[in-house]
Amino acid sequence: MNMVDIIIKKRNGGKLSNEEIEWFVQAYTNGEIPDYQVSALLMAIYYQHLDDEETLTLTKAMQASGTTIDLSSIPGIKVDKHSTGGIGDKTTLIVAPLAAACGVPIAKMSGRGLGMTGGTIDKLSAIPGFETSVEPETFLENVRTHGIAVVGQSATLAKADKLMYALRDVTGTVEEPSLIASSIMSKKLASGSDAILLDVKCGSGAFMHDEEAAAELADKMVRIGKGAGKRTVAVITSMEQPLGCAVGNSCEVVEAIETLKGRGPADITELSLHLSAVMVLLGGKAATLEEARSMTETALKDGSGLVKLEELIKAQGGDPEILSDITKLPRPAKAIEVRSAKDGYVAAVDAALVGHAVQKAGAGRARKEDEIDPSAGAYLYHKTGDQVKKGDCLARLFGNDADKIRDGLNDLASAFRIEQTAPEKKPLIIDTIGLE
Amino acid sequence: MNMVDIIIKKRNGGKLSNEEIEWFVQAYTNGEIPDYQVSALLMAIYYQHLDDEETLTLTKAMQASGTTIDLSSIPGIKVDKHSTGGIGDKTTLIVAPLAAACGVPIAKMSGRGLGMTGGTIDKLSAIPGFETSVEPETFLENVRTHGIAVVGQSATLAKADKLMYALRDVTGTVEEPSLIASSIMSKKLASGSDAILLDVKCGSGAFMHDEEAAAELADKMVRIGKGAGKRTVAVITSMEQPLGCAVGNSCEVVEAIETLKGRGPADITELSLHLSAVMVLLGGKAATLEEARSMTETALKDGSGLVKLEELIKAQGGDPEILSDITKLPRPAKAIEVRSAKDGYVAAVDAALVGHAVQKAGAGRARKEDEIDPSAGAYLYHKTGDQVKKGDCLARLFGNDADKIRDGLNDLASAFRIEQTAPEKKPLIIDTIGLE
Repeated sequence: MNMVDIIIKKRNGGKLSNEEIEWFVQAYTNGEIPDYQVSALLMAIYYQHLDDEETLTLTKAMQASGTTIDLSSIPGIKVDKHSTGGIGDKTTLIVAPLAAACGVPIAKMSGRGLGMTGGTIDKLSAIPGFETSVEPETFLENVRTHGIAVVGQSATLAKADKLMYALRDVTGTVEEPSLIASSIMSKKLASGSDAILLDVKCGSGAFMHDEEAAAELADKMVRIGKGAGKRTVAVITSMEQPLGCAVGNSCEVVEAIETLKGRGPADITELSLHLSAVMVLLGGKAATLEEARSMTETALKDGSGLVKLEELIKAQGGDPEILSDITKLPRPAKAIEVRSAKDGYVAAVDAALVGHAVQKAGAGRARKEDEIDPSAGAYLYHKTGDQVKKGDCLARLFGNDADKIRDGLNDLASAFRIEQTAPEKKPLIIDTIGLE
Repeated sequence: MNMVDIIIKKRNGGKLSNEEIEWFVQAYTNGEIPDYQVSALLMAIYYQHLDDEETLTLTKAMQASGTTIDLSSIPGIKVDKHSTGGIGDKTTLIVAPLAAACGVPIAKMSGRGLGMTGGTIDKLSAIPGFETSVEPETFLENVRTHGIAVVGQSATLAKADKLMYALRDVTGTVEEPSLIASSIMSKKLASGSDAILLDVKCGSGAFMHDEEAAAELADKMVRIGKGAGKRTVAVITSMEQPLGCAVGNSCEVVEAIETLKGRGPADITELSLHLSAVMVLLGGKAATLEEARSMTETALKDGSGLVKLEELIKAQGGDPEILSDITKLPRPAKAIEVRSAKDGYVAAVDAALVGHAVQKAGAGRARKEDEIDPSAGAYLYHKTGDQVKKGDCLARLFGNDADKIRDGLNDLASAFRIEQTAPEKKPLIIDTIGLE
């Protein structure tokens, strides 16, 4: 095999064979092919794309390039959940306990956030004592005992994807649907669950800005999952405005707890009930989505979801008192308010701008090595559709560094668009695909 | 400036600014931008191309990245000549002396061949004692004294092009017209002549297989040359079959001498007279192409071209006795003949296959570090259009290594296509563009 031939074949619109894809992924992982040839191939793929078979082969080759987690010692259908990422997305903290409370074993590996806000692992790290890096044996034991464990992603998972993603990031080759889909799915396949739920976000605060692109990506990932023999469902959800009211790390943990207590914002509650219901269905604990939904609603109402979160926190060394006393969580020392300049309706709360604001305030990383301020974040007092009066508090931006908060303030203020007429109501859950 | 932004801009079909092009060429030359970003940009350029302004800026930036030869101390209009390369192309050895004999100062830097046969420098190196690597001062002094000097290209000429060409070669990004044109022209501009003649080959033995692609490349190079303020003319010539009858190094020197003695093959004689006439016109030594042509015909007939070649050889330490005694040149120890299997007409002599044959026999390099056998080559006794009888000798393949010759024999035999009807006659000189 010769890498130049492979590059030229794809450059000219040809279809790569399974052998060619498997060869270059393995050789690249072993350091036998230089970055400059892989980046040229990635740019050729950007223009010529990969078909379903090439995408599935690439995904499996990247999965096979690193560690694969073996969950076979855990009884039942293990269901994984992945979000393509958005602002204020704390659903894993709610959905995983709800699904676990309904009997679905959750053995979840999550990433840290590199972007505007932290990832699930950064949010859990805001809980005093919570250990996100545990030994594989402990991880499996916790799932067997408690039906739930959430840990940081192993560094050796889908090694080729890790190398290739880093390369794509610096060579302008990130935004290609089959590369995005195979990158996500290679890690999901390597994580060992039997079924996969994907939450594909679209809108200003998401990687995919429009519905069509989100639907294409969702479709590709579902086809990969099914091609690899896993039940896979994708939910396409709006990320035009942040999810819920809290955006940050510590404050999102608070909002997740409130939601599990039945006092959460309507949007995050509704989405969490839907996502966990799909997981219950995928986990074989219900015969229909309606039945599954009624089970997750019960788990929310009777507090069994909250109990599962408490079990998770205790099992991984965290302080369970945070569930009743939020002052045990990191609290910001400083805050600034954003007030409405006029009477009207909130026509939009731009998720990307809110994300920039909280990142500047200290809640996200600009570079991998940056430290996160777990107390930093924003709280939105009003969201799209709300009627407001001049001088009303729209949002607060907070954290421990007053300078950083001031840096982010302009973005937060710009995120709100106030108009004279009420905006058209748009759905949060746009579509659910892959349900048979 | 940020390389990722530049890659994405070009990827999306945008036009790069002069500042962006100058920045990345300089930063890459200085080792401040990694190969993997440049190869991604090159692949994006492969699809999105460069417009005339971008191409000119890239050419000048690559020219400026290395040494620039200053020929201003030499009186007169210095004219450079470049061939895009073909099989049996020894025209520089004929054209440079003819133009010099007509008073055009020739200060030529040539490359070594990396491909099927040697370059001009490899051919000159077959002459015992001939020094192709001389000090810059000697080079200029020789042009001032004799009106002619031909030396190897400085390694520091157009440094960015050298780096980028090596990268293109291993990343499937060679075949893009603006990249090819800027690569050639950056070295021509850096070589310091006032006017440039380009011989753009097309056909099976050339880089450009069809006339349309050759015309596009020729046009681009003429526009670059004129954009850089140099009179530039391109001649598009056929490379379907080898040029002349000799293909190799030592044997091509012999054929060049024969041609300067008025006894050369018709095709090489005609092309040499045309190319040198264009150079005489560009050099301001004639008012019209007709006048220039009559001057080069005279230089051929009266032997003054041959005298210039003798001066060139003497000035650079070579043995001038080769002009009258070819046994002073490297001679092959072994030879094998290819005979016609049937009666008919030679319908084609595939230049690429002849090239492969002589490369295998030892006349060319497969890798940069390979040694050339100067005696190795082929001699074609028949060319396209000739009537032949079964058993007639079509060609001989020769060199010092019998095994290597046997390796090349099949390619040489396959190069000849014999048919029952005479082929249509096609022109050698297809077009001359850029003449005002």
